[in-house]
Amino acid sequence: MRPKIYLFGDSITEDSFCDGGWGASLAHHFSRTVDVVLRGYSGYNTRWGLKVLERVFPEAEGGGDGVDADAPLAVTVFFGANDACLPDRCSAFQHVPVDEYKRNLRSIVSFFKKRWPKTHILLITPPPIDEDARLRHPYVENPSNQPERTNESAGNYAKACVAVAGEFGTPVIDLWTKMQQFPDWKNAHLSDGLHLTQIGSRVVFEEVVKRLRDEDLTTETLPVDLPLISEIDPNDPMKAFQQ
Amino acid sequence: MRPKIYLFGDSITEDSFCDGGWGASLAHHFSRTVDVVLRGYSGYNTRWGLKVLERVFPEAEGGGDGVDADAPLAVTVFFGANDACLPDRCSAFQHVPVDEYKRNLRSIVSFFKKRWPKTHILLITPPPIDEDARLRHPYVENPSNQPERTNESAGNYAKACVAVAGEFGTPVIDLWTKMQQFPDWKNAHLSDGLHLTQIGSRVVFEEVVKRLRDEDLTTETLPVDLPLISEIDPNDPMKAFQQ
Repeated sequence: MRPKIYLFGDSITEDSFCDGGWGASLAHHFSRTVDVVLRGYSGYNTRWGLKVLERVFPEAEGGGDGVDADAPLAVTVFFGANDACLPDRCSAFQHVPVDEYKRNLRSIVSFFKKRWPKTHILLITPPPIDEDARLRHPYVENPSNQPERTNESAGNYAKACVAVAGEFGTPVIDLWTKMQQFPDWKNAHLSDGLHLTQIGSRVVFEEVVKRLRDEDLTTETLPVDLPLISEIDPNDPMKAFQQ
Repeated sequence: MRPKIYLFGDSITEDSFCDGGWGASLAHHFSRTVDVVLRGYSGYNTRWGLKVLERVFPEAEGGGDGVDADAPLAVTVFFGANDACLPDRCSAFQHVPVDEYKRNLRSIVSFFKKRWPKTHILLITPPPIDEDARLRHPYVENPSNQPERTNESAGNYAKACVAVAGEFGTPVIDLWTKMQQFPDWKNAHLSDGLHLTQIGSRVVFEEVVKRLRDEDLTTETLPVDLPLISEIDPNDPMKAFQQ
């Protein structure tokens, strides 16, 4: 059985298999070693994510002895962009107060730690927000002409996410900070002020690969599924398949 | 449990999660309905594919009652490009005679039909070959200056694949014929005379989606995993999660 990495999050996860998306890039990177499994739910915040956790990750049948043979190598938890919608703007129904966001993230991490004690949990903060672009690309009617998300608010959720990771000692990608280190992040990394361009997706992909490498999860260390063509002897190809 | 579609084949399958690849496009297309699972093995022919079949698709635990809960919705079987290497050229060790290719394909299809009686099996023929490009992009040393694959030979394997599909009454994508209907197929569809460009990958993606649609496997007919954001009532979001 090939090991798995789950990608759990909102639309930035659900869309991660579009052309040049970070999920597809991970699947390509690990094409002979890991199944990258998509569990992205557009528009979801941590309140809804927490509510559906047992349905998204049902307990493996035949479990109960404390060992889940289906335990993934890793799971990315990438929420906050929707929680950070402002409570008095046009996407208020997705808003979750930052204190509840922290509690929800803690509950999600605790769930995974209990279910899969050896699985690496990787938190990812929401990305920064380009407020002007959010006004140019509304998702719903927005008569107020004020962006439904601000970069400052997203930053508060990013800080909360980093803090929760610190409490658990799990790795975290502070995407909000990382992206803003690039001078042209608004145009280079974001397609509509929130979702990722191919270059923005590349940042996430490279950061995830780096954090997995820190946990020794690399294409060099993980077992390769079946002999590579380079390992097959042209003079006796079937020898490679005897084991 | 979300249903699966397996992609089983050679490098054209293994590489299918690259930017704009047909596997990634399928995963994106079915992002809330199906797990698209990559089982591509670069350089493999049907002889090797048949040899490893039980290891690639191990019997589900707790089976034996004839019903495999892990049965996928569909599996694509996409071999032949390596079988079609000529027996007297530089990649001869990958060559499989066309009669054996047919027998191997039959055995692979029979394996799936026995293991998963309700699973849709979709055969895909090898693509056409641009022989000049094969000389410009050698994979191994090629002192003969003759291409290791010819378009004519690939066409014979494509015909054999179509014939096997006909014997079983399973759908087939005749990629060899389909691609050559485009005037500029050599440049538009192939990157090195064999592997697919993004446009070539698009052809495969669209054909696979079309054949799955013929079997009633569409994003409209398959159950969606959890409520879509459009189904969540902004005035009472949690209602959508009561079930």
